[in-house]
Amino acid sequence: MAKAAAKLSPFAPARVPAMPALDGVRFAACEAGIRYRGRTDLMLGVLDAGTTVAGVLTRSKTCSAPVLWCRESLKGGKARALVVNSGNANAFTGKKGSEATRMTVEAAARAVGCAPAEVFVASTGVIGEPLDAAKFTHLIDGLAKSAAPGAFEAATRAIMTTDTYPKLATRAAEIDGVPVVINGFCKGAGMIAPDMATMLAFVFTDAAIAAAPLQELLSRHVETTFNCMTVDGDTSTSDTLLLFATGAAARRGQRAVTAPGDKRLEAFGAALHDLLRDLAIQVAKDGEGASKFVTVEISGAESWAAARRIALACANSPILKAAIFGEDPNWGRVVMAIGKSGEAADRDRLSIWFGPHLVAENGVRAPGYVEETVAAYMKGREIVIRADVGVGTAAATVWTCDLTHDYISINADYRS
Amino acid sequence: MAKAAAKLSPFAPARVPAMPALDGVRFAACEAGIRYRGRTDLMLGVLDAGTTVAGVLTRSKTCSAPVLWCRESLKGGKARALVVNSGNANAFTGKKGSEATRMTVEAAARAVGCAPAEVFVASTGVIGEPLDAAKFTHLIDGLAKSAAPGAFEAATRAIMTTDTYPKLATRAAEIDGVPVVINGFCKGAGMIAPDMATMLAFVFTDAAIAAAPLQELLSRHVETTFNCMTVDGDTSTSDTLLLFATGAAARRGQRAVTAPGDKRLEAFGAALHDLLRDLAIQVAKDGEGASKFVTVEISGAESWAAARRIALACANSPILKAAIFGEDPNWGRVVMAIGKSGEAADRDRLSIWFGPHLVAENGVRAPGYVEETVAAYMKGREIVIRADVGVGTAAATVWTCDLTHDYISINADYRS
Repeated sequence: MAKAAAKLSPFAPARVPAMPALDGVRFAACEAGIRYRGRTDLMLGVLDAGTTVAGVLTRSKTCSAPVLWCRESLKGGKARALVVNSGNANAFTGKKGSEATRMTVEAAARAVGCAPAEVFVASTGVIGEPLDAAKFTHLIDGLAKSAAPGAFEAATRAIMTTDTYPKLATRAAEIDGVPVVINGFCKGAGMIAPDMATMLAFVFTDAAIAAAPLQELLSRHVETTFNCMTVDGDTSTSDTLLLFATGAAARRGQRAVTAPGDKRLEAFGAALHDLLRDLAIQVAKDGEGASKFVTVEISGAESWAAARRIALACANSPILKAAIFGEDPNWGRVVMAIGKSGEAADRDRLSIWFGPHLVAENGVRAPGYVEETVAAYMKGREIVIRADVGVGTAAATVWTCDLTHDYISINADYRS
Repeated sequence: MAKAAAKLSPFAPARVPAMPALDGVRFAACEAGIRYRGRTDLMLGVLDAGTTVAGVLTRSKTCSAPVLWCRESLKGGKARALVVNSGNANAFTGKKGSEATRMTVEAAARAVGCAPAEVFVASTGVIGEPLDAAKFTHLIDGLAKSAAPGAFEAATRAIMTTDTYPKLATRAAEIDGVPVVINGFCKGAGMIAPDMATMLAFVFTDAAIAAAPLQELLSRHVETTFNCMTVDGDTSTSDTLLLFATGAAARRGQRAVTAPGDKRLEAFGAALHDLLRDLAIQVAKDGEGASKFVTVEISGAESWAAARRIALACANSPILKAAIFGEDPNWGRVVMAIGKSGEAADRDRLSIWFGPHLVAENGVRAPGYVEETVAAYMKGREIVIRADVGVGTAAATVWTCDLTHDYISINADYRS
């Protein structure tokens, strides 16, 4: 990688959030030299016995070997280890790819003392390049020995590819009056560097929740968080979101939640949703070449799914995103994107706002529209585009970034 | 429009094709001053009595007033006039927009001496700006008087927005052994200039074909031509393709075709397909900021529709198109795009070629892959990406262009 470091996102936080301790999970990271030099690229998470797991994986038909492994292991619902490498996605690597995943899993199972089905793996980096697991499997035992509670930031940094900042978030909730913690981190910026193809997110809680209700919660909340975020509409071969519950809160009096729909999970679900949304927004804000963070809010749609589809049509429109980069309040392109979504919209009842400014209503330009006012609004870092499509009562929100010269430069830059 | 003229596409032909005479249609164009200065922006086509018409219109839910008018008028299947203006799309203009269309239609009906339902209209240019038809309706009578056979190029130039070259094509065919001509022209380059939102195409023939078989032919052939072409995946509010048959060939002995499926239309259908493909490719080659013309060929799919959807997933992928601009043979992004299409593909039987070079087979990088060879291929102006997805026998081809800095500059450039 002769490639210069990517420019820091204007949304990079001044400092990494302080992550509270979370009983039942420890991390270690090291430099395995898989592709990068002078930085960590391998991390191990060690989970206490009794940890449950839920997951959401890419629907790509060309998914990576680790995704296939996780899909199988999730059926067991139990987790003791998480191994993630950066520098190589182990995607489109055929039988050698499955073999590399198997070697990694076996090394972790030995190091932690668990069944292979309790090991979860993810890889991020180059597609199509064979991953030589022998280069790092001998390091996993040492990682297990040195794994320490609270090393969330070290774990996050080891899985970055060319993210311009580490993405972490924490939330607190209560179950049965017992305080529980949710800590999560993720990486991904679309495909910010050539061939880097992964959005990975890992969330941990000390709550005692069985795998079935955990999965139900995760599947529900991912729909309105990560699945409402887009950088460029390009779904990776490796997208992985895993949620681990160590159950340590049971020792502090939390009765385990065993069934989906348990009312005791309401506050926890709200906190989980908030954390997932926080991480998803961090990904959009670190999107390839992003200069602006964009929120698209669609209301008046026939259903939530229709509202999301319309919002994604806006958020994935190259021509609208280029206009936002150009600070041009080009609401005609919002009209176009709504029209092309295929979902019901009443042209003659359509209203559009840029931030607080009504730009169009009842299918024509708003009488009070003052171009200069809206143009001034477009100079901000954070842009909200809102539209009411006039056919129903459902609403959805999607987050994205603008389409910039830096996006082209980053992705046109030859890989060598 | 203080905007500088767009850079000429590298694919602009050295000269406009010579268009043969076509009995039964005459054109005139003039400077109406709708938005541009020093160029024509209004054209009238006058069609002989007996002309039939077929059409394909945008499916956008926010379509323009002229599209709504054409949709109604196509039910009659008869045409005597075509009025097209550039500079204003008359889209998202509410009741005033319908009124402007009605005024235009009535002026043309009077000038030509026909029913309003025999007048077809299209507008291209700014969205959301009211179109003041009174500025040009008084000119239509003069256009009708001066309309001349063979003025195809003049008609084409009047409907350009910021197309960098006029797009015309001609084909010959025979019906009943009688030679017939098909002449067509179109405009559009995605949305090459801020707010310019239209792909318009008009095709004329002197063949005698009733509206029903004409519509069947057009609907069939548009699927594998214009509907297999994309610049940026952004469907316009105004896309319009109309096919007029003047029937003049009947005077030379061609018996009129009255029913869909008539075997006598085979050669004509093939010539029509060829002409539509030619025009569609001209649009892709004049795509916003295009530096390379890209053909995506997908084979081994479950159905033609699946193959096209996979090909479009590749052709609309910003990250793949940016890599092509960067002359990077980044086949991992082809794997990604195939995977995200949602259509069946067998990862472990997938093969990918860049031009003649096999880069991946059986789900892994091809053993004979030499990066330097493929990188040299990527320096060409015309790039063919081919993939066999290994699940069936269906194939489809899609045409597009790369995603470049010029695309961003063109679309981020503020409209004023």
